[in-house]
Amino acid sequence: MTDAPMTAQAASTATAGDLLSSHLTAQAGAFLRALPLAVGEAGARPGAAAVPSAGTADLLRAVRRIGGLLHTFGATFEQTWAQESRTELRWLLNLLALEPGYVRKSSRLLGALDALSGTEADGPGMLAGHAGVPKARALLDRQLTLARTRAHTTVLQELRSARLHALADRMTLLVGEAPLLDAAGGRAGAVLLPQAAAAFTALTASAQQLPLRRASTPYGGDGLRRLGAVPPARGAVDADAALAADDAPWLRVRILVKRARYALEVCGRPAPELDELDGVLGRHQEAADAAVTAATAARTPRITPATAYVLGVVHADQRLEVEAARYAFGHRWPELPPGLDAWLEIPPAEGWGPTPSRMA
Amino acid sequence: MTDAPMTAQAASTATAGDLLSSHLTAQAGAFLRALPLAVGEAGARPGAAAVPSAGTADLLRAVRRIGGLLHTFGATFEQTWAQESRTELRWLLNLLALEPGYVRKSSRLLGALDALSGTEADGPGMLAGHAGVPKARALLDRQLTLARTRAHTTVLQELRSARLHALADRMTLLVGEAPLLDAAGGRAGAVLLPQAAAAFTALTASAQQLPLRRASTPYGGDGLRRLGAVPPARGAVDADAALAADDAPWLRVRILVKRARYALEVCGRPAPELDELDGVLGRHQEAADAAVTAATAARTPRITPATAYVLGVVHADQRLEVEAARYAFGHRWPELPPGLDAWLEIPPAEGWGPTPSRMA
Repeated sequence: MTDAPMTAQAASTATAGDLLSSHLTAQAGAFLRALPLAVGEAGARPGAAAVPSAGTADLLRAVRRIGGLLHTFGATFEQTWAQESRTELRWLLNLLALEPGYVRKSSRLLGALDALSGTEADGPGMLAGHAGVPKARALLDRQLTLARTRAHTTVLQELRSARLHALADRMTLLVGEAPLLDAAGGRAGAVLLPQAAAAFTALTASAQQLPLRRASTPYGGDGLRRLGAVPPARGAVDADAALAADDAPWLRVRILVKRARYALEVCGRPAPELDELDGVLGRHQEAADAAVTAATAARTPRITPATAYVLGVVHADQRLEVEAARYAFGHRWPELPPGLDAWLEIPPAEGWGPTPSRMA
Repeated sequence: MTDAPMTAQAASTATAGDLLSSHLTAQAGAFLRALPLAVGEAGARPGAAAVPSAGTADLLRAVRRIGGLLHTFGATFEQTWAQESRTELRWLLNLLALEPGYVRKSSRLLGALDALSGTEADGPGMLAGHAGVPKARALLDRQLTLARTRAHTTVLQELRSARLHALADRMTLLVGEAPLLDAAGGRAGAVLLPQAAAAFTALTASAQQLPLRRASTPYGGDGLRRLGAVPPARGAVDADAALAADDAPWLRVRILVKRARYALEVCGRPAPELDELDGVLGRHQEAADAAVTAATAARTPRITPATAYVLGVVHADQRLEVEAARYAFGHRWPELPPGLDAWLEIPPAEGWGPTPSRMA
């Protein structure tokens, strides 16, 4: 590790600390601007849009990036502070994601049901005119609206909590004053690039553990019939546990894609390939979650067989979406690593520097 | 049309009549040898194998080929006789296909259910451990066994009928004595090749009407969500009718594939590409039939919601198989026509001749 003192020279000779501070200042500023908006939006009636409203979306974006940087470039920060900050950011992330998650799930499941039972000019679906459709739709709608309303109450409470105020204070202090270690005084390229490369290596290693060859065979049954082997459970094999175990490595890879993506942004190499993979794995996760919801709804007591039948079709349809997302990932991934790998191995050219603002 | 008299010279100068007679004699002989075996097999207990037993399989093969030849090369035969023969052969075909059809359907549906609820080392399915699986399995097994038993009774009756005896007599007369028109006296290549080409053109025209571009996009939802447009019906849109209308052009193409295949066999150009497409469309048809059975079983009165749910998953799984078969077809088809097309346009080389025996 180089111990050169921090300087405020040209970008090409910026220190790691300069670069991280400038990124964190920008993101913490975005956090602080978005927070009151998000609180105000939450105070309004729970929204029904499939995307979070502007303030919440900005807040989520800042929270994800700050958390990602604190993780990937962790060796550069004061350890206890970084660890605590990440815990609190993760808490807020989960909290903020709750309500939009139900809205998206609802729009996904009702959309699937409408497509499956559609009677459009494009051609009807396999459930067109089925007697169970209206009841299944009403059941899903009712259960998801209820869950969203509950989530809304929780979010409202927590947004007034001391915990959130403490996190906001933490972000205020972060503006311009990230608690950096001496290591941050090294040149940006020398200090940050190996850490970004490590994030990318972690992603590559995890992605290579996925059944990519199988997944990239279309209609291989990966999401429905041939889930990954489940660790020997104590009791009987349970489909919910099997599905969760099957999906887990994909969800993990999504987290690693996001981390690599944010790390590359800091290094001035935005990676649209990773954005795309993030999107594909986002669809994977949403479909997997929606499938669980359909399966759970089908266990509601006293529903009619026709309703249960329709929910079975919807469950399978969402598992098929899971399979389709894996196929899309398996199709894109192999072409991805070489380019980025090479980039991460090449020492940054002179003039390589930070592009801290205007990130999507 | 050439009116040259029939000769019995080298294969290269064989007449159309020679070639057709030799094929029909071989197939009628196979018919007559297989018939008593098939009757004997039917007299035994109804089988549980997914493939028809040897006698029935041979009989089906001969029936399909004779019927195909009488259709494709219809201009060469005495019209009334050919028409009547085709009607009777189609009757026997449907009769013989009945019982193996239920056996295959049963093995397909129970196999799908077992895969979906499997707990093998390869990984469990999405229905692993689901409470509805044993009841759904028992329901499907019971209904299909009953249908098969009924079909068996029908087949046994009809195999003793005067109608079958009359058809056997018709086949006996066919050995060596097909009622040919004068046109059959022309050279094989000149007479038969245009008719085989017409069969192939009919296939190409029908295949091009299929939504092949859409079908060859994996996970396009063709079998589940986006069925072909259904002609405006008198009543409400009905999923069963929509599915049937959606599958119909594919089933039609399968018939045309078989006809083209048999016609090319007669012309001494066995087409393994067509065998493969026939197999793919066979899977399409079986999956479509199995999906209907699952949907019908789900309408059985007084089943539990868990049973209905499982049947919904199985229905969707079979529609997914339909979609997968369409994908496979759409993927293979475009590479096929050029080669065969060219072959059908090129006049047969000297020495081109019949290969009437040893056909699969």
